[in-house]
Amino acid sequence: MWTRRALAEVEDLLASSLRSPGDPFLTSVATHLLGAGGKRLRPRIALLAATFGDPGRPGVIRAAAAVELAHVASLYHDDVMDEAATRRGVPSVNARWGNRVAILAGDYLVAKSAELAAPLGPAAAEEQARMLTRLVAGQIREAAGVATGRHQHARTRAAVPGPGSTVRCGDRGGRRDVRNGDPERYYMRVIADKTAALFALAARLGAHAAGARPELRDALGEFAEAYGIAFQLCDDVLDLAEPSARAGKPAGADLRQGVPTLPMLRALRGRGRGPARLRRLVARGPITDANRLAAVTRLLRDSPGLAQARAEVERYADRARRALGALPDSPARAALDGMCGELVSRASGPPASEAGPPGHPSGLTKPDS
Amino acid sequence: MWTRRALAEVEDLLASSLRSPGDPFLTSVATHLLGAGGKRLRPRIALLAATFGDPGRPGVIRAAAAVELAHVASLYHDDVMDEAATRRGVPSVNARWGNRVAILAGDYLVAKSAELAAPLGPAAAEEQARMLTRLVAGQIREAAGVATGRHQHARTRAAVPGPGSTVRCGDRGGRRDVRNGDPERYYMRVIADKTAALFALAARLGAHAAGARPELRDALGEFAEAYGIAFQLCDDVLDLAEPSARAGKPAGADLRQGVPTLPMLRALRGRGRGPARLRRLVARGPITDANRLAAVTRLLRDSPGLAQARAEVERYADRARRALGALPDSPARAALDGMCGELVSRASGPPASEAGPPGHPSGLTKPDS
Repeated sequence: MWTRRALAEVEDLLASSLRSPGDPFLTSVATHLLGAGGKRLRPRIALLAATFGDPGRPGVIRAAAAVELAHVASLYHDDVMDEAATRRGVPSVNARWGNRVAILAGDYLVAKSAELAAPLGPAAAEEQARMLTRLVAGQIREAAGVATGRHQHARTRAAVPGPGSTVRCGDRGGRRDVRNGDPERYYMRVIADKTAALFALAARLGAHAAGARPELRDALGEFAEAYGIAFQLCDDVLDLAEPSARAGKPAGADLRQGVPTLPMLRALRGRGRGPARLRRLVARGPITDANRLAAVTRLLRDSPGLAQARAEVERYADRARRALGALPDSPARAALDGMCGELVSRASGPPASEAGPPGHPSGLTKPDS
Repeated sequence: MWTRRALAEVEDLLASSLRSPGDPFLTSVATHLLGAGGKRLRPRIALLAATFGDPGRPGVIRAAAAVELAHVASLYHDDVMDEAATRRGVPSVNARWGNRVAILAGDYLVAKSAELAAPLGPAAAEEQARMLTRLVAGQIREAAGVATGRHQHARTRAAVPGPGSTVRCGDRGGRRDVRNGDPERYYMRVIADKTAALFALAARLGAHAAGARPELRDALGEFAEAYGIAFQLCDDVLDLAEPSARAGKPAGADLRQGVPTLPMLRALRGRGRGPARLRRLVARGPITDANRLAAVTRLLRDSPGLAQARAEVERYADRARRALGALPDSPARAALDGMCGELVSRASGPPASEAGPPGHPSGLTKPDS
């Protein structure tokens, strides 16, 4: 099948564009995570999108590789920020070579990604730059939101702010104004930017490179945007599942980092003893000790928040599927449709009551796809 | 004069492209260093280069702003890596909002820089991406070289390697192969990449956006490449000067970080008691205590290494001036020529024997121009 062959070509291009002859050090830091695997989900979407134009055009492989490099670059910087020790089953770049090299290597991959995309023309370069801006803005808003959302940690030394209030923010506490609106809307915007933007870029760049008609490109972009939101919601739901349900990704990461995800935001809104207890536990600061983590996880799993978040995965997956309706019927369309189904069944997972407590961070790999 | 008016337009574009309506936090982290000043040396070169075409073209201001954003992005990441507390007389982004926000904000500026450059066309986007790749590769090689050059620190736990030897490298010691050639050639390549590439981008992008003829653009690029090398050599020389000679930048930073600059490499090569003592002092590891820093600085100032490095500043400044010979005579050419003269007189500074010991890091600002 074409997609499989094309994925192999993407792999070759990734390797060759990161090979620096005479500089084995640069080559190994740049290829470290790529060599360790990954599902190549974004290149896959780019290649499937390209079938709605002429997938044989020379820029198609380039577009798919550019998107993967931008993704991997963000993983390099994520791991520095989270002080992660492992990624994809191997030591993280920061763990192996230190933060300095990991930050620079992430920057290097961003530049290489731009090099790959540049020949696709100004529209593609603009699209890529705009999507990367969204991605990073989303991450910055997430970092800021940890200090300003309703679900927050004492580490940030922020009082729960009212609308439009001024709060102390950040690890070292600079002052800033925040229009603290609806936390759920804030969260939805964050995940659309930090996750869905790159999926949308994959679809649009693949279609663009293949010369697909603008209305097909737009439909594919709409699909990928909704799919990306469903993907992140699914990830947030699975953060509360037992480790084995996540193919080895340690659970509870969002809780430990104080990232307020949808299940938590919904659960905190509830009435009764459970939500009240949850609010008390969350207000006490970072959920780092195993007992409190287990208690919070249990409360979340029993709350309607988790079920509601699963329903949202379905809702966005359906929205993604509906966007596919504007495309001609084809194996690629069926494959994209199938990806939505996989996501929904992954999110529903085992019944909540059967899942064990979330594991602590370990050497387990994070299936960042 | 046109350049001054154009610089004001660049300033407006920088501010407007970083303004996120409704998101004061994102706006303030993104504009933090730009608002704190800077000499806008790279936009200035872009604008001067543009006068060799039609400087009224709409992309010219955009090109100048894009280059400055790439520069400021690199400062954000530099400050995280160096754990710098201040920059341009204000708290660094990392000191104010923490490393997470500073890394992301640097990424944001890179993306915004690409957004500004994208409409300039595929050649410009490619040029920008390629130069950013060079910039970061140079920084990575510098980081790697600290562990493999002749002048190195015990912190890296690396033995002085012979050519082609395998060494332990990095804060956490991953194994790697290094073709350890001539350290001075290595250093010259590093500074060409980490510093001159961005100057070359400024000149070439400015000329390109103005539609200057290819041979003029190439001459301007050649000028800026040589100027950039002279600029970095000058910076390395001034690192050994007294703080007041550097407009407040704390001296000795390269020594403390173990970055082997040209004055050191040349001084270490010498014969006699001075160089022998220097080699012993350097071999003892990071030069962090005040006494050893003062001793090393004194030896370097008295060595022929410093004078030789100053001569190299002149040599590259002359090379830059010669490249200008291919351009028609104009006020812009005279201005570029004048910049070379300024650099040479800055590097020659006060007589070495009169300079005091280098200061320790303080709240003083780094004139990163």
